[in-house]
Amino acid sequence: MRSLVLIGHGSHLNGESAGAVYRYAELIRERGLFDEVVEGYWKEEPSLRQVLKTTASTDVTVIPMFISEGYFTETVIPREMGLGHQGPVPPEGVARVLGGKTVRYTLPYGVHSSMADVILERAREALPDLGEEGTPPTALVVLGHGTTRNENSNRVVYENAERLRHSGLFSEVEALFLDEDPKVGLWPERVHAPRVVVVPFFASEGWHTLETIPEDMGLTGAVTEFPENPHGPQTVHYARPVGTHARIAEVILQLAEEARGTGGRGGDEDRLHAQAWAAFMTMARRGMRVGEVLITPQLGMFEVRHALDEGIPGGDLTTTVTPEGLRDQTRRDEGGHHRPVHTLRNLPRGWRAVLSEADLPRAMHALYPAIVEEGYAHQQHALRATPWATTARRQTGIYAKVQKATPEQVEHVAEDVCSGCLRTRLWASEQLPRTFFDGVPGAIPCAEACTYLVAEVREEVSGKRGTGAGHSH
Amino acid sequence: MRSLVLIGHGSHLNGESAGAVYRYAELIRERGLFDEVVEGYWKEEPSLRQVLKTTASTDVTVIPMFISEGYFTETVIPREMGLGHQGPVPPEGVARVLGGKTVRYTLPYGVHSSMADVILERAREALPDLGEEGTPPTALVVLGHGTTRNENSNRVVYENAERLRHSGLFSEVEALFLDEDPKVGLWPERVHAPRVVVVPFFASEGWHTLETIPEDMGLTGAVTEFPENPHGPQTVHYARPVGTHARIAEVILQLAEEARGTGGRGGDEDRLHAQAWAAFMTMARRGMRVGEVLITPQLGMFEVRHALDEGIPGGDLTTTVTPEGLRDQTRRDEGGHHRPVHTLRNLPRGWRAVLSEADLPRAMHALYPAIVEEGYAHQQHALRATPWATTARRQTGIYAKVQKATPEQVEHVAEDVCSGCLRTRLWASEQLPRTFFDGVPGAIPCAEACTYLVAEVREEVSGKRGTGAGHSH
Repeated sequence: MRSLVLIGHGSHLNGESAGAVYRYAELIRERGLFDEVVEGYWKEEPSLRQVLKTTASTDVTVIPMFISEGYFTETVIPREMGLGHQGPVPPEGVARVLGGKTVRYTLPYGVHSSMADVILERAREALPDLGEEGTPPTALVVLGHGTTRNENSNRVVYENAERLRHSGLFSEVEALFLDEDPKVGLWPERVHAPRVVVVPFFASEGWHTLETIPEDMGLTGAVTEFPENPHGPQTVHYARPVGTHARIAEVILQLAEEARGTGGRGGDEDRLHAQAWAAFMTMARRGMRVGEVLITPQLGMFEVRHALDEGIPGGDLTTTVTPEGLRDQTRRDEGGHHRPVHTLRNLPRGWRAVLSEADLPRAMHALYPAIVEEGYAHQQHALRATPWATTARRQTGIYAKVQKATPEQVEHVAEDVCSGCLRTRLWASEQLPRTFFDGVPGAIPCAEACTYLVAEVREEVSGKRGTGAGHSH
Repeated sequence: MRSLVLIGHGSHLNGESAGAVYRYAELIRERGLFDEVVEGYWKEEPSLRQVLKTTASTDVTVIPMFISEGYFTETVIPREMGLGHQGPVPPEGVARVLGGKTVRYTLPYGVHSSMADVILERAREALPDLGEEGTPPTALVVLGHGTTRNENSNRVVYENAERLRHSGLFSEVEALFLDEDPKVGLWPERVHAPRVVVVPFFASEGWHTLETIPEDMGLTGAVTEFPENPHGPQTVHYARPVGTHARIAEVILQLAEEARGTGGRGGDEDRLHAQAWAAFMTMARRGMRVGEVLITPQLGMFEVRHALDEGIPGGDLTTTVTPEGLRDQTRRDEGGHHRPVHTLRNLPRGWRAVLSEADLPRAMHALYPAIVEEGYAHQQHALRATPWATTARRQTGIYAKVQKATPEQVEHVAEDVCSGCLRTRLWASEQLPRTFFDGVPGAIPCAEACTYLVAEVREEVSGKRGTGAGHSH
């Protein structure tokens, strides 16, 4: 039995940030090579602190869904997941036994050697006759961001450019960058061929691929003519970023395969995890309430809806029949705001999900990540809370300053942030004698301050947080 | 059958603002002279727009709980309640027939002639030997705020000072003011007697009575000695404000009695109101969910608790047995913030109310003001929605500028404010085919933009509203 975990950055503000990880998880799930594919995020849920608890097997491969190595893959993810590793990850990855699980942590997908193939795929999409006889000489520009404080992205761009020089498909291959030399704006001097294909080595479409690159290069669309360039007329074909190519799923699977090393039969079922879900399913089969939702067994299926929508005929609600559909129905609150913390009491109404018994666990995982595992562990007196001071001490980078927050500041921020949350803060010594496993729908433990609270405490310490009392009414 | 309505200003921010009105309503309720005593607020709920719907009888006396006449009593309250009157209210009050109800609107309690007795009571509390033989000559200072843009408070202070000059209890009586001449700081020149009692003609304890008056007069406590004043040594006794005296309940009853004029048998039961509550009680007797609460019949009583607390043994919840207890348990959210809008989805958990059948309606009125009347009317197709443009056009004073808000601005603010609310905005053309009367707990109509939204739209138009997106995470 094997679990694959894909780790994304996520966002407290941008609801689309997790989209790429969703899509790759779905693609790989369809292949059926892993017993489960789970997503985890730094700034969404399940968090890096929770995600290992949510895996069903004792054989877990963790792949950081980043385009390059750096602060996130070398510092934040290993630290938050408790891997006992900091710094560059060796090519074979890092393997640890954590809480009875064998966890293999790999390099990010972007540094895998097969990324050269993805670049080539993107180039072919932009220029379908690439390499055919009689076509004019064609230059490839692999375009990277350049190394920042957080990401060492230039090395991999140079390596891929070098690999593709040997493909024989291009008359020249250049590595150019947005933020370091050689800068992308110099392309008319450096690139000689009359045809140029530009492949952005970026994780996703965004500000850089849609705004800064076209502006710096003078591009006006997918194809731009430059009739009077220093080396003669040139035509630039602008490809889509590598990180959104479906073939990334192959790269992920290769990374996972290589991390496993000698292979073997995989792991066992995680006992506590299996018990938690067995207990949950027993309750669900009788009908239950958990958090803000109502679960009703119906002819061997399960209907999940907002408890405030009880009594509305199913046909009057937007009906979805997959865990992904439920996830997408509940990603935003009724005002359209992203919900990075799923247990905030702002679950939208107006939908229902009709799910098979096999799909219900994944639907619950999308709706309220990790609450079944954490709720059950708490009921079994096996959930360990992490006090604020420990969470704060662990922070680095821009969040290191939360260590300076006074207990009063933390409590003040928690009054705003946590007062809207279903969870009960065990980490702040709040008591929770029962959970939803005992039939109390709103009783969900909070084992540790979430990254949303940490970020808000940082704002407070920085003096950037509104008091909420500035209004005149 | 008679209903008494006490109108307070209320506050979107200060949870204590409504406290004085609560207390007088309770005092008058205990007397049993009215079949019901209902509270209404400009900035809390039930709102001025809703409060008449919540009265059970067709004979309604409305008393503005203000210390003086002015903008609120002459403009805002009559306008929002639809009295068809603007400007000074005559001594006999204003009587109107509205929706089958006879509504009598009186002057504010502060201008009633019996306020002189309240001033005297306060003076006696500060100086128990007042008027006894052998006591030194004593001066009374009646201390008012002075006329502001919103309140014409000087006339009534002068009138009361004049009345008390004839009491024979004081060697001199002065009317002094915080914000107009003669200013309070001049008291050592104007007041000659060796004993001085100062009675603040203010509605409640607050910034003025606790800070500005003591500072302007040089007071250090309830009794302050001034050994070297121009007219010789003086001792100042500082009384509590008139507006919090229990005797105000008498003033209210006198006002109500005078408004009724020739008396008579009172009104009838309001038919729609009676039907709504009969329908609600029928449902409650079977057990029901409404908004975020669960109502369970128990041995002839009703238990009300947060639906998220279902299954918690009663002994583990803070138990209250009165509507006032329930009101006080639910005035603040779990972070301690005031809840001016009761249908926001931030009802705190951790309590239960055990109520008699007679008390349940008033408890519901405290928990979710006006939803039974409005929900039932909507179910009967008798609830008329007021479009935003109409609400905006009606605004005056600092809120007049909301008329300038574009539909996009209103919608943008509503996305923040209304997305956390149970209610469905009929005034913005949202559809609500069922209500909690049909068994859908969260289905509650919103007939008109509340003052909280109006105030937030004003902030938006003024450019003072945060975007909520200023955070770095």
